[in-house]
Amino acid sequence: MTEQKKKTTIILFSGDYDKAMAAYIIANGAAAYDHEVIIFHTFWGLNALRKDEPLALKKGLLEKMFAKMMPRGSDKMGLSNMNFAGMGPKMIKHVMKKHNAMTLPQLIEMAQEQDVKLIACTMTMDLLGLQQEELLDGIEYAGVAAYLADAEEGNVNLFI
Amino acid sequence: MTEQKKKTTIILFSGDYDKAMAAYIIANGAAAYDHEVIIFHTFWGLNALRKDEPLALKKGLLEKMFAKMMPRGSDKMGLSNMNFAGMGPKMIKHVMKKHNAMTLPQLIEMAQEQDVKLIACTMTMDLLGLQQEELLDGIEYAGVAAYLADAEEGNVNLFI
Amino acid sequence: MTEQKKKTTIILFSGDYDKAMAAYIIANGAAAYDHEVIIFHTFWGLNALRKDEPLALKKGLLEKMFAKMMPRGSDKMGLSNMNFAGMGPKMIKHVMKKHNAMTLPQLIEMAQEQDVKLIACTMTMDLLGLQQEELLDGIEYAGVAAYLADAEEGNVNLFI
Repeated sequence: MTEQKKKTTIILFSGDYDKAMAAYIIANGAAAYDHEVIIFHTFWGLNALRKDEPLALKKGLLEKMFAKMMPRGSDKMGLSNMNFAGMGPKMIKHVMKKHNAMTLPQLIEMAQEQDVKLIACTMTMDLLGLQQEELLDGIEYAGVAAYLADAEEGNVNLFI
Repeated sequence: MTEQKKKTTIILFSGDYDKAMAAYIIANGAAAYDHEVIIFHTFWGLNALRKDEPLALKKGLLEKMFAKMMPRGSDKMGLSNMNFAGMGPKMIKHVMKKHNAMTLPQLIEMAQEQDVKLIACTMTMDLLGLQQEELLDGIEYAGVAAYLADAEEGNVNLFI
Repeated sequence: MTEQKKKTTIILFSGDYDKAMAAYIIANGAAAYDHEVIIFHTFWGLNALRKDEPLALKKGLLEKMFAKMMPRGSDKMGLSNMNFAGMGPKMIKHVMKKHNAMTLPQLIEMAQEQDVKLIACTMTMDLLGLQQEELLDGIEYAGVAAYLADAEEGNVNLFI
């Protein structure tokens, strides 16, 4: 009899650089331990999946405002703590470089290489006016029902 | 042999409109999938359960200050991100209306209709000086022991 | 046949007094219910484990800055909400005293007495420049692999 693969699911709600780092470090660790891993990006967590170039897309006024005000991609996100108007992320990135730690964009790339399933929540994409063209390639699109189907079989389920 | 119902428990610690929305969307989704669902409201998450009218209650000075400073009910809560002194919630609510998305008060009502068990943490009610008269009807009152009894059997346990 | 002990794991990522209180109240409750309990302190959550006296340690400039800017120990941490430049924690502590509620340092002490395993994340210690001499005695040091080994068997796994 073959053993069922262990499963880790993470809801990434936060748009903070440090919280997203924690999410992706756990996800990559779990994938290395042969877990099936899913990160469900919702609300501000969707910003981690944004491409960094601006795109000319048809949007309403509010959607344009959201798009402008939210960080465009994982490298632009702020810290949950000691952000100091952007100084904090610079300090952290400087220290990370010194320690040869992986940056958030590198952690996301590694997750994709390890077949971590990256899902964008379609309901909050609608709310925030985000379109598929603005998000990274190779991700999936789903709603809360898909999340629950995964999580109810999860060994480790986290909300970050 | 009948199968045990799946169980989802959520600790709602946050007093942010968007985080509470996420909690209630997951809860309503899980209830629709026939999970037994419990939301345990603690600390600032208790604000989601406050009635919106002010009540004349006997309170000490600090309790009065907390009662004044904390949002009175789910409709008054701010955002975890891009709050912009209250502009953010208005923008989000405007977009939600446009998309016919449910507001937080509507999500809470739906949860009650679906028999999601809404629990107020008695220990933090004491700390913040909140009394049962100030909270919604039809909720339950319990402490961390009750939460743990539910969570240790939970398929999905989240802290939001 | 002996039944396996239930297990609760908590990642304490946050450096907020109130969130750390919630983590330790759950941990102490679970330990009282005979769960095996692990709190994995990472990022700002490491501040809860700092000793309150300053130590003369060799550090680089950035590490010195982090050490200065971050709260030295659980008693110095701010609130996630209504912090009001430090007024909030004073109010909360005043109310806690009135209600004979345990403070965060007392909750941590109780957890140690109940054999809750307190772990400091070595990767973020490196990043933030924290050294073992600066942290409480009797704690353990590990990385994400150790966390996952515990969590994949956990009945209750939370990220706070």
